[in-house]
Amino acid sequence: MKTEIGAVNALPTPTTLVGATVNGKPTYTTIAWVGVIGRTTLFVSVNKQRYIISGIRENQTFSVNLPSENLVKETDYCGIKSGKDVDKSALFKSFYGKLKTAPMIQECPLNMECRVVKTFDTPTHDVFIGEIVSTHCEDSALVDGNVTLGNLKPFLYSMTDKGYWKIGKKLANAWEIGKNIK
Amino acid sequence: MKTEIGAVNALPTPTTLVGATVNGKPTYTTIAWVGVIGRTTLFVSVNKQRYIISGIRENQTFSVNLPSENLVKETDYCGIKSGKDVDKSALFKSFYGKLKTAPMIQECPLNMECRVVKTFDTPTHDVFIGEIVSTHCEDSALVDGNVTLGNLKPFLYSMTDKGYWKIGKKLANAWEIGKNIK
Repeated sequence: MKTEIGAVNALPTPTTLVGATVNGKPTYTTIAWVGVIGRTTLFVSVNKQRYIISGIRENQTFSVNLPSENLVKETDYCGIKSGKDVDKSALFKSFYGKLKTAPMIQECPLNMECRVVKTFDTPTHDVFIGEIVSTHCEDSALVDGNVTLGNLKPFLYSMTDKGYWKIGKKLANAWEIGKNIK
Repeated sequence: MKTEIGAVNALPTPTTLVGATVNGKPTYTTIAWVGVIGRTTLFVSVNKQRYIISGIRENQTFSVNLPSENLVKETDYCGIKSGKDVDKSALFKSFYGKLKTAPMIQECPLNMECRVVKTFDTPTHDVFIGEIVSTHCEDSALVDGNVTLGNLKPFLYSMTDKGYWKIGKKLANAWEIGKNIK
């Protein structure tokens, strides 16, 4: 039996740490309102009240860092605390790739540095669409040169139950298991 | 040690079945390029070659259905096969809520019916931003009236390893576990 529960957004989403440069310093904030737009494009939806937003607007660059389970406390903290009040760059070791204003987090096993290619406005959030310029991955998460999700140990955010959820085992190969359906 | 692997999009995303009405009939397609934009808004990025796209453009409505692990074969099939060639509505029992052109899948434990509020164009995909009009959830996935991710048993898609991945256990409470970091 199904129940109609109103306009509830129950899509689970990956938990990320988004990085940018504000006032010449790295800062990071927790964002799960992220997603894939195209093969090398993604978006982040950033609340207009967030400290980080001025840095993304100014430099038109940001990074998306995927924390592993072991960083869940730090990740949650970066969503609770504002960069106005605390220096979140002190929590992590920052590094840079091709973009000198998109700091990335060494402790996260996967980092994508992005250049803003489009922005659109909603009443509460700026949505930044980023072209991935380069991706950096821990060798332990690469299998035959491909990023393997299970090795990254990322976690999801679920708005409806306010929970972080682990990734489980591989269920099936995509573009394959459905081939033989009649 | 990290390796720079080029512009690789390694963000994991939820696997969904998107529904719409094409030529007066329900059709469904598999899309993992979906995400949360705002509290009651989400987006789907739909390849311009997909059969379903004319229906979303015409009616300005669509549904997002979250399949459970037991539907992995059917879900993969809906991504491999085109509605031009097969009648995918025959795979599922369709039902309707408030929007009469946004068919939903009975077998999926979570269904969100959406009205398009904005569209933007990329070279290969139309990105439809939908306002959720109403959400329908299996009672078994509701705990104290809230959708609980673990009970939905959805699965993720990972582009880099072409895999579907299960959801694991709850890792922590969001907005809580990071409170006491020093």
